[in-house]
Formats: sequence, structure tokens, C-alpha cells
Amino acid sequence: MKILVINSGSSSIKYQLFDMAASGRVLCSGLVERIHEPMGAIKHKKFPDSPEEAVFADELPIPDHKIGMQLVVDRITNGQTAVVASPDEITGVGHRIVHGGEFFSAPVIVDDSVVEKLTSIIPLAPLHNPGHLAGIATARELLPAAPQVTVFDTAFHQTLAPEAYLYPLPYEFYEELRVRRYGFHGTSHGYVFGKTAEFLGRAPEETSAITIHLGNGCSMDAVKRGKCIDTSMGLTPLAGLMMGTRCGDVDPAVYPFLAERKGLTVKDIDAICNKQSGLKGVCGVNDMRDVHARRAAGDEKAQLAFTMFCRRVTHYVGAYMALLGECHALSFTAGIGENDVDVRQQVCQTLGYLGAKIDAEKNKTLKRGQPGDISTDDSPIRILVMPTNEELAIAQQTLALLQTI
Amino acid sequence: MKILVINSGSSSIKYQLFDMAASGRVLCSGLVERIHEPMGAIKHKKFPDSPEEAVFADELPIPDHKIGMQLVVDRITNGQTAVVASPDEITGVGHRIVHGGEFFSAPVIVDDSVVEKLTSIIPLAPLHNPGHLAGIATARELLPAAPQVTVFDTAFHQTLAPEAYLYPLPYEFYEELRVRRYGFHGTSHGYVFGKTAEFLGRAPEETSAITIHLGNGCSMDAVKRGKCIDTSMGLTPLAGLMMGTRCGDVDPAVYPFLAERKGLTVKDIDAICNKQSGLKGVCGVNDMRDVHARRAAGDEKAQLAFTMFCRRVTHYVGAYMALLGECHALSFTAGIGENDVDVRQQVCQTLGYLGAKIDAEKNKTLKRGQPGDISTDDSPIRILVMPTNEELAIAQQTLALLQTI
Repeated sequence: MKILVINSGSSSIKYQLFDMAASGRVLCSGLVERIHEPMGAIKHKKFPDSPEEAVFADELPIPDHKIGMQLVVDRITNGQTAVVASPDEITGVGHRIVHGGEFFSAPVIVDDSVVEKLTSIIPLAPLHNPGHLAGIATARELLPAAPQVTVFDTAFHQTLAPEAYLYPLPYEFYEELRVRRYGFHGTSHGYVFGKTAEFLGRAPEETSAITIHLGNGCSMDAVKRGKCIDTSMGLTPLAGLMMGTRCGDVDPAVYPFLAERKGLTVKDIDAICNKQSGLKGVCGVNDMRDVHARRAAGDEKAQLAFTMFCRRVTHYVGAYMALLGECHALSFTAGIGENDVDVRQQVCQTLGYLGAKIDAEKNKTLKRGQPGDISTDDSPIRILVMPTNEELAIAQQTLALLQTI
Repeated sequence: MKILVINSGSSSIKYQLFDMAASGRVLCSGLVERIHEPMGAIKHKKFPDSPEEAVFADELPIPDHKIGMQLVVDRITNGQTAVVASPDEITGVGHRIVHGGEFFSAPVIVDDSVVEKLTSIIPLAPLHNPGHLAGIATARELLPAAPQVTVFDTAFHQTLAPEAYLYPLPYEFYEELRVRRYGFHGTSHGYVFGKTAEFLGRAPEETSAITIHLGNGCSMDAVKRGKCIDTSMGLTPLAGLMMGTRCGDVDPAVYPFLAERKGLTVKDIDAICNKQSGLKGVCGVNDMRDVHARRAAGDEKAQLAFTMFCRRVTHYVGAYMALLGECHALSFTAGIGENDVDVRQQVCQTLGYLGAKIDAEKNKTLKRGQPGDISTDDSPIRILVMPTNEELAIAQQTLALLQTI
């Protein structure tokens, strides 16, 4: 009942090993970095966040994903870094996959046809899927006894109706190239929605909620009676909310405007929209904690960036309430959502009118890392803080699927 | 007290002459078309929409705006087409200007500095402002006795706060190029908001409403106690709602995606987003009446286009309620908003939850062209149909300004 969760990127591999028999206790976690570069690194934590925590860091060349995965298996099973006696103790491997296109609405066990489908949609996720595929290939080779499961960031949004996922562009772009809204962070939204229903003591299929994932990337979902009906990210993770370095929704005509006026190429503008915009674009720093530090020092642009960031969230809360036609809870999650008292307060400032009344005192005093209700006792809609745990969600979904075979 | 309203485009001049002493009665209206082309046209209506209506249509070459304006003045003042005895009877001329940039938050009397400012912001409205400037220049020359007033489509939105008008792009794009949200249809939104307050019997500064302009172009405004706080169009009229041929909001990353996958240039994509998208992109026709005809015939893509169009409006209604924190009325206006029973019904489908309850029977039976309330008696928010009249609004604002000097 030990599940290894892998997030294999283009030049890195993140991993966590869960003991599902011990309520999902994390046995070890780690990060392989700078694959393909002259000098790589692996950082391995045994029993993280526990009194026995031990950290092992090494630098060495890691020329490819296979050598990277060999290091991971070695750290988990050999010598003083080990947490299991043999790779055979690993019941299954869950792979985080950013983009499942329209093929996958639930986790699946990896076989050649899954690899083929993931390969076919590389154009939709050129930065992510090749790394995922490399991770899958090496994990299948190195852990042949453990079934491999893919868990998709896009799966939770495959319940969207065509009127929600289609763009008002020429229809043939959808037919030819599958241009549509996919949405991301789906594993987190699905997990937080489940926890929200549980917290409310309601069956998921009788719960409607808005999940607000505010981290490095930011997105929101509208979930009606257990089914996601809308999500703020789109064809790519650029759309929707304002983020650390991403602009989110802007007039798409900024592309031709900047191309014409600044002589920039589409690629230049794309890089600007993804890496030089958001909080960073407005006030120079992309971490909300730094934004707060600058606000405290009287920096007007930091104040502006903060207000813009929150306003966009408020916009989507109202929009999703209107589309849902009912709402039991708003759930804040991820780094900012779970920890940022000021952001939550500002987002909810005018939401009392729509039935979501924040309690400033509860918001301030909620214990970090704990789920909790920060709405007033008489608020018709609950405002919740619900810590997310994508890795655990992947492990749970992997185990659940393996238990059906 | 006769005000001539001019909308001078790149190759056309629309005009209406109002008798403001007779409650804004239209004395004549007309359209000069195909300026610069080998064969142009002028259509002049005397006393339009009245029992005395008479139409005069001519084809002749109209090589430039000056000759176009000469024709307008001639039709208004000479022979059987005339409605006044001499140009001197024209008290003032109101020019509709699409883009006033950040210079103008109210109508102004034209002088050289106004012309200079409008010239300086041509890059923000390259398709519109040059035509406006040509119209202003010839009107000043041909009607030297009549003061000229410019009325801006962007003025009503100049009350937006920085957090509402700035994009989360690098701040220097705003400083250097004035990249920001401007919004359009402002004269219509301002007029309809005023009529809404009047209908509710409330002072404008105590009225909060959402104005929904659905015509060939579509946009929405959130107005809080008389001041516009948000608008759905942006830097250009492409952003926001789905329109006849415009896509409105899409993941901005469709630009790099289509550039890469289809080998399209920024200009190609811009043209597609503006002219081949919206209703037309999804189902092949851009007029909502044609969409309905196809829906009635069982066309699934027409049904999809209709649902997408309405869903986007619902999204913005909720978003604006959240940002307003109070709302007395929703006001539908313009071609679709005033006449399309199905669109209004579909938009409001889930809005009862937020306090805007549509009365299906009132919606169906409301007399065309008349203002009216289509909400249920117990609806906390009034849902109104408020006919717009941009030309009359321009005439009123022109007269009001002239009366202050």
C-alpha cells in the first residue's frame, strides 16, 4: 500500500512516497533538478515534516531522465536514505500529467495506447508532456512490477458543457486543433471540492461550491452538485486570474497592438504575458509576501497590484455564482489562499451582498494549515479555507484505481 | 436649438438633425457611403419614422469627406430635401468620437488643441479617429458659425479606478503606450443608465445598475451610484462579451498557439478574432435573428452559439454584482437587448439566485421600442429593457455643453 507520486518535468523530477495504510503518511519526498545540465542535483527528505526528518542533498551530473529516476529509486530503497527495503514494496506509481487533452476524464493505468495519446497531444502542452512521457518511460522500466497510473490536471474539467469549453472562434479551430478551454489545477480543485463537501457534511452530488486555488498559478472552478461547470484557465494556464508573473485575462488585441507599436514578435509577447506580467509586471515582485512587504512600506504600485489581484478573484466569484445559480461555499486553497489573510479579506469585501460574509476576526485567527470556516455565523454561503494536497490526491486516485483491478 | 449629430467614419458619414426645442424630434437623418470609391452614395431621410417621412437616395462619386459634408449640408438646407432654411439655423454640431484616450472624460468644444489630442491618439483607434478628424475638419469649414462638440465613446468609463482599468502587464506599457482598459459604447451606457435611474425614480448618484448593450457590438457596464466602475470592452472593442463576429475574451495564448500551429501572422489572427469569430465563427451567421432561424430549424451549432452568447452575459452580470456590492437594476439595451426575448430569458435563467428574477410573461409581451420592467413583482433587482439612443444622447450632451458657454 505504498504509492510513489511522480511529477516529471522537462528538467526535473519531483517525488513523494506515501504509506496509504498509514493514512497517507509521507515516507519520503524529493526533487531531482537540472537534468541535462553539466551539474545536476538531488535533494531527498526522509520522513519530511516529522520529528525524524532527515535531508540528503547531492550534486552530480544527471544526463537524462533515466539516470534521474534511477537516483530516485536508489534513494528510496538503498542505504541510509531508504524508507523501504526493496522496490517491490511500491504498490503503484501515480504520475501527475498537466494535459490529458480530451482523452482523459479520470486516472488511467498506463499502457502503450495511453503513451500514444499523450504523445499526440504534445502540441497542447509542449513544455510539460514530453517531460511527463520521459518520466513514465523510465518508471515503467525501473519499476516493472508496479502498475503506473496517470492522473490528469485537466480531468476534473472534462465535465464542462460545450458552451463552457468552446471559444467563440471559428469552429474549425476546435475540430482541427482542439482549441478549447481545458483548465488546469484540476486535481487540486477536485480534492478541495471533496474536502469542502466533507466539511459541510453534504454529499458531493448535493454540493455546489467555488474553489479558489491561489498559489504561484491561480485558478478557480465552479462546481455544481459535484460536477465542474466552469474553470478560469483556458487552452493554456495563462488565462483567467492575475498571477505571480502571468497576466490572466487581457484584451486579446494586446497582441496585435504590442506587435505593431513595439515591434515585438508573438513569441516575445507570449513570454512577456507568461513571465513578466501579473504581480511582477505591475509592481516588480511576483511573490505575494514581497508585495505585502512593499505595501507596508508605502509602495503604491504594490498596493495597486494587490488590489488588482483580489479584484479579479471577486469578479470570478460573482460570475460563477451567477452561472451556478446556487452556492454553498467558497473554498480558498493553495499558498496564498491558505495563508494570506489580507487577500481573503479584500476578495470578500463586497461579497456580503451576494451572501458570502467574511468574519474578519475568524479570518485573522484561523490556524495555518488547518481547514476552517471564516464566514460570519449568519452568512448564507460558507467561506472556507481548505488546504490542498495535490500529491496526496494523486496517491489516493492511483490507489483507488489499482484497487478496482 | 437644432443640433446636428455627425458620426464620421473612414469612408462614411452618418448624420441626424435634432430639434431640441421639440423634445429632440428628428428632422432628418442620413448616410453618406463609399467615400473615396469610384461611386459613392447618399441616402437622406426627411422626418424619419413620421407620417411625413420622405427618402432621397442618390449615387455619385464622393472623392473625400469635404464633398461628403457638402452633400450633407446641401440636403439639410436646399431644395425639396431641406428641413431648415439656412445653415445658420444649426445651433451646434455634435461629433461622435470612438476614442478619447485618457484626455476626455466629458464632451468638449472643438478647438485646435482638441484636434491635436485626437491626432496624438490615432494609434489607439487607427480605424476610427482619422475619419472623425476628417469629419471635424470639414464641419468646422462648412459650418463656421456652429460650435463643434466632440462626444466620446470612452468618456463614461474615465471614472474607472486604476485597479479596474490597468492590465496586469508590465507597467511601462501603460506609461509608454497607454495600454489600459478604455471601454466603448460609453455614450449608450451613460444614456441608458440615466434612463434607468429615471425609470426607478431614483437619483443617479443613489442608483447602482448593470447596463447590458447587446447590438452588433456588445458590452456591459457596472455603474455604482452614478459612476461607472467597470466595463467589459478593453483596450479595443474586441474584449469582453461574445459578439456577432468578435470573439470577446479568449485565452490570449490563442495568438501564439494559432501562430505556431497554423502559420498565421498576428494580423491574420487579429482579423479572424474581429471578423470571423463570435456567432459567425461558431455557427456561420453573425445576426442573432439568423441564429434563431437556424435554431428553429434544429441547427445544433446555432443553438450552441446562442447558449455561448448568453452564458457570457450571465458571467458578467454576476461578476459586476460582486464588484458593485449592490445592484438596483439590470438594463438590457440595443438591437438584441431591446428586442430579443429569447436572449433575455436565457441570460437571466440562473440569475434568480442573485436576486434578479425574470418574469417570462412580461418578457414576452413587452412592447417593442418601449422601456419596461420584465422582472417578477418580488424580484429584489429590477430587470429592465431600456431603449438606447446614442445620437439623441450626443445631441443632448452637445446642447448642454453649449448652454454653459
